Amino acid sequence: MKIALIGLGSVGRGVAEMIARKDLGLTITGLADSKSGAMDPKGLDIPALLLNKKKTGSCGDPKLSTMEVITGADYDALVEVSPTNAITGEPATGYIRAALARKKHVVTSNKGPLSLAYKELMAMAHKNGVALRYEATVAGAIPIMHTLEHGLAGNEILALYGVLNGTCNYILTRMAAEGLTYEQALMEAREMGYAEADPSYDVKGIDAAIKLVILANTIWGTDVRLKDVDCTGIDLLTPDALRLAEDEGCTIRLIAEAIPRKHILRVSPRIIEKNHPLVFDGTLNALTLETDMAKEITLIGRGAGSIETASAILGDLLYIRDRYDGRA
Amino acid sequence: MKIALIGLGSVGRGVAEMIARKDLGLTITGLADSKSGAMDPKGLDIPALLLNKKKTGSCGDPKLSTMEVITGADYDALVEVSPTNAITGEPATGYIRAALARKKHVVTSNKGPLSLAYKELMAMAHKNGVALRYEATVAGAIPIMHTLEHGLAGNEILALYGVLNGTCNYILTRMAAEGLTYEQALMEAREMGYAEADPSYDVKGIDAAIKLVILANTIWGTDVRLKDVDCTGIDLLTPDALRLAEDEGCTIRLIAEAIPRKHILRVSPRIIEKNHPLVFDGTLNALTLETDMAKEITLIGRGAGSIETASAILGDLLYIRDRYDGRA
Repeated sequence: MKIALIGLGSVGRGVAEMIARKDLGLTITGLADSKSGAMDPKGLDIPALLLNKKKTGSCGDPKLSTMEVITGADYDALVEVSPTNAITGEPATGYIRAALARKKHVVTSNKGPLSLAYKELMAMAHKNGVALRYEATVAGAIPIMHTLEHGLAGNEILALYGVLNGTCNYILTRMAAEGLTYEQALMEAREMGYAEADPSYDVKGIDAAIKLVILANTIWGTDVRLKDVDCTGIDLLTPDALRLAEDEGCTIRLIAEAIPRKHILRVSPRIIEKNHPLVFDGTLNALTLETDMAKEITLIGRGAGSIETASAILGDLLYIRDRYDGRA
Repeated sequence: MKIALIGLGSVGRGVAEMIARKDLGLTITGLADSKSGAMDPKGLDIPALLLNKKKTGSCGDPKLSTMEVITGADYDALVEVSPTNAITGEPATGYIRAALARKKHVVTSNKGPLSLAYKELMAMAHKNGVALRYEATVAGAIPIMHTLEHGLAGNEILALYGVLNGTCNYILTRMAAEGLTYEQALMEAREMGYAEADPSYDVKGIDAAIKLVILANTIWGTDVRLKDVDCTGIDLLTPDALRLAEDEGCTIRLIAEAIPRKHILRVSPRIIEKNHPLVFDGTLNALTLETDMAKEITLIGRGAGSIETASAILGDLLYIRDRYDGRA
């Protein structure tokens, strides 16, 4: 199966390296970063292009644009892992549309297009007889979408509860363990590389809310948006609040919840018993699905990372390979 | 898709009720309990047969044997949920062979055949172009096999660690929480219906070891048996041992482990940090898969129960329906 890979940041490099290293029947025939592109229907020399990127800052020909690769390369599936823009969804949404218009499968880790144009893009994929898969958009390496599709097939999903932001979980872990203030724990998270210079996207719950939107629309076929989420972050939490929770054998975690029967779509700090499956330390992500037959199923794993996210993308690609015999 | 259901204990009743209640395109055309059988190519009246079973102790015609249903009924997939015999695997192994010989798909919750004749049965299914699926054999409702097949496709599984016996986890939870002796906690587990009159199959680690054998053979294509598992139960654990672990912020859990690089295939009580994802209270089951790309993925859920196990069986049936267009 031939792959066009758009984006060579941390996730894109992980995908390229894993495809080059593993013998999975996948060949990269198109590649683009923000400054250049490369195409070869027989397969690109990935190690050479990655070295080029490292040395010069761009992987290929600066005269070849990303859109030219998407519309011109010979491929079966587009892997779209360019930077996320949560406000406009662009340019990723345009990239995905262009590939679907060519009747190419699309696999993406990009939350922007999925949270802003889910219904439109899914309809376009369906109409053109191709797959649009996005396992990597929610909770990194955790195979949530595959679990919904296959593992829990036949189940009605009644509710979901998730720890979908590793930065917040790290900060809350450290506040509880060491009695740190929010500001101290945030500083530590920055030093560890877990928080951005502007952490508001994480600590105000927006990142978790966007993932909640993607999950809810996937599970219940709705068309909810970020504005529909009742969203409270962790930036106003005090060490006192955590101490009070600890006194009761509990702690506080930022929980994303969707409970249709109660009309709840919410991200907020919740008091939660310490031995609950959604309580764990550090930057992990987790999701509990409440279902009619299997009852509660919880999945825990890495929510970010280059190779971890590549795992989710390869899972989607291999599913397409098996399902469609690798043909777009 | 037409289903022949063998076994009407707790799991069988759950499967029958869920198929009757949910509109999944599944029709039960053959049914057998230990004393009787029923067949109708147009579909059996399941509520009537279950009521019959409740009133008279047998569901159908006492002159119709289980093997006659398996060899005579018109069906696409056999659901084999008769009682497990961990020593001989019979009569379940014979039932499965008979269905595979007719080129029928088989879905089973029966650990006996899978732990004793895995290679032979899988080869027979493969040769006859049908599926043999067994999600329900390990950890009840947790979709482990689907996760290995799809969610973690492309990953190399490096090791697995599981809490695969809910009875032991309950006993250890109660010993740690209340300082009970093993005997006291076992008595409580019996009163709650979590332990059998003869608990040795659970507390000596045999049940967990059989599940470990099924997982290891599935993941690594090996042909290991129960005798290959280094197996220690929880029946000699003292409250003192648990207290010492608690003093260090740890607790003790019965962990099933397979680590090929270290030649470890073991079930034993392990000291484990309390905030580890595999530490939770009560009768839940869990499994951590250590992989090359996704790193550690942990799944937690119900390890037993009528409807919970039916969830795993329906997941397998729906996979066959989609993969083979419902035809055997």
